[in-house]
Amino acid sequence: MNTSDTPTASGERDDTLATQTVCIVGCGLMGGSLALALRQQVARLQVVDPDPATRERALARGLADAASATLAEGVHGAQLVVLAAPVRTNLALLPRLGALVAPGTLLLDLSSTKAAMIAAMDALPPQVRAVGAHPMCGKELAGLAHADSTLFRRRVFVLCRSRRSDDAALRLAERLVAAVGAVPLLLDPQAHDHAVAHVSHLPYLLSAALVAACSELPDVARQLAASGFRDMARLAASDPQMMADVLLTNREAVGEALQRASAALGQLADLLVPGAEDALQARLAALQGQRQSWPPTTGAS
Amino acid sequence: MNTSDTPTASGERDDTLATQTVCIVGCGLMGGSLALALRQQVARLQVVDPDPATRERALARGLADAASATLAEGVHGAQLVVLAAPVRTNLALLPRLGALVAPGTLLLDLSSTKAAMIAAMDALPPQVRAVGAHPMCGKELAGLAHADSTLFRRRVFVLCRSRRSDDAALRLAERLVAAVGAVPLLLDPQAHDHAVAHVSHLPYLLSAALVAACSELPDVARQLAASGFRDMARLAASDPQMMADVLLTNREAVGEALQRASAALGQLADLLVPGAEDALQARLAALQGQRQSWPPTTGAS
Repeated sequence: MNTSDTPTASGERDDTLATQTVCIVGCGLMGGSLALALRQQVARLQVVDPDPATRERALARGLADAASATLAEGVHGAQLVVLAAPVRTNLALLPRLGALVAPGTLLLDLSSTKAAMIAAMDALPPQVRAVGAHPMCGKELAGLAHADSTLFRRRVFVLCRSRRSDDAALRLAERLVAAVGAVPLLLDPQAHDHAVAHVSHLPYLLSAALVAACSELPDVARQLAASGFRDMARLAASDPQMMADVLLTNREAVGEALQRASAALGQLADLLVPGAEDALQARLAALQGQRQSWPPTTGAS
Repeated sequence: MNTSDTPTASGERDDTLATQTVCIVGCGLMGGSLALALRQQVARLQVVDPDPATRERALARGLADAASATLAEGVHGAQLVVLAAPVRTNLALLPRLGALVAPGTLLLDLSSTKAAMIAAMDALPPQVRAVGAHPMCGKELAGLAHADSTLFRRRVFVLCRSRRSDDAALRLAERLVAAVGAVPLLLDPQAHDHAVAHVSHLPYLLSAALVAACSELPDVARQLAASGFRDMARLAASDPQMMADVLLTNREAVGEALQRASAALGQLADLLVPGAEDALQARLAALQGQRQSWPPTTGAS
């Protein structure tokens, strides 16, 4: 990464994070965690949130210099604005931001789906700069109360170019990623959305389906739920508005992932018949083998 | 629990664990963990395992006084025998044990499904005592190498009566449960199997289906897999023979659980269409609410 403060060979500006006024729009788990992680590394930090109690908590926790109810007030003087609300809220706010901010301002978003957002960034006025982002971390617990300055550490932080991304904008985005301890990964938005439909949105839907399948069990089943159930049902506790936004802005890829999972479940069900014992065990062994190409398990008990 | 060593009012024997020679058949994660947890609380501990390396490791780790390759040698002198192999192995060993052990010996099994095992216990000779058991804990990592003396602590330990369970047998089983720090729960075997089909076997199948659905993704998807994927794909790493045994001895209830999960997934897929936004969010909110009736999430990130 280029850490120089001097103009680049191309004559492009090269911003350092330390001189920036940063505005974070949406002060939930993600926005709050980003504010905590960035607070000491930027010149000034402003947050925007419609909820008075959240603004009060943000100031009490010392994670921002100012907390505003309105976008116009919040982005005033900011050179870097980060959209950290649910996806469809970010999509609605982006065109308004385009008209509010000073020329050259960099807009980033943390939305969990990227294609729709990059298309919206492409349509911004040409004097605004915009880069899509998605930190690959999260919790099933929403809200500023669960914000954590270490949330991004050693996590992959996806960056996506838009037509409003120049090289200097991308460098500044990479500096933000490095400042919170994360690892930047430049990706095509469609490739991102297809992958996360399978590795993030499908896991959520399978977790929700598990809770649905268990909804009418007698109470004693709750005493039998152990670590396997706990882990598999965790994501179903995620914020419904956030997840609805994610699924609705990634319909096609999520539909494809759901079809693959349903087909796999059907194949496993077909092997639960007398005479298919060896085929069932072979299939389970093959899937155990495929599991090994993914990040290691935790050995949780 | 009655902790007296004297004969009960009914004249029944009342065994204490401290005077027992215990034999554990199968020295994997479960059997090894039980041996470690019981070692200091019984008079003598013997293990049986067909694998020479496992027997050597068991003795090297000091978790048994003796390690045998054969059932006949291993159960010699034991008043309490615990079957801790995969379910179908336990089912095959039980009738042989009935002919090998001395009258009054208590047979316990740790199988993850109970109805087939209790039926097999009912058919044992009347001079043998037998109680079904299932500790609600485990790991996706199989084998003695992952055995852990604390595995059972504060976990529910299901006990099921058979026609060979007298009150003293049940009391001794409860003492074993207490000795390893677990909480006994007396359950009907069919109720047990129906519940675990949903809260244990279905989670495993959903995890396997997730791995299957993600099997053909490009490599970059592996960099995007975060805590949600990690937790949801963990159970797919479970031992295939163990899981095939579990599923094959619980076909009907597992089939019912799979149907419910597939139906729930189909309903969610149907809501991923334009115009169903509010219905989708309402459904996700309802499932988030249902999630709250289950043990709390971990807040993992």
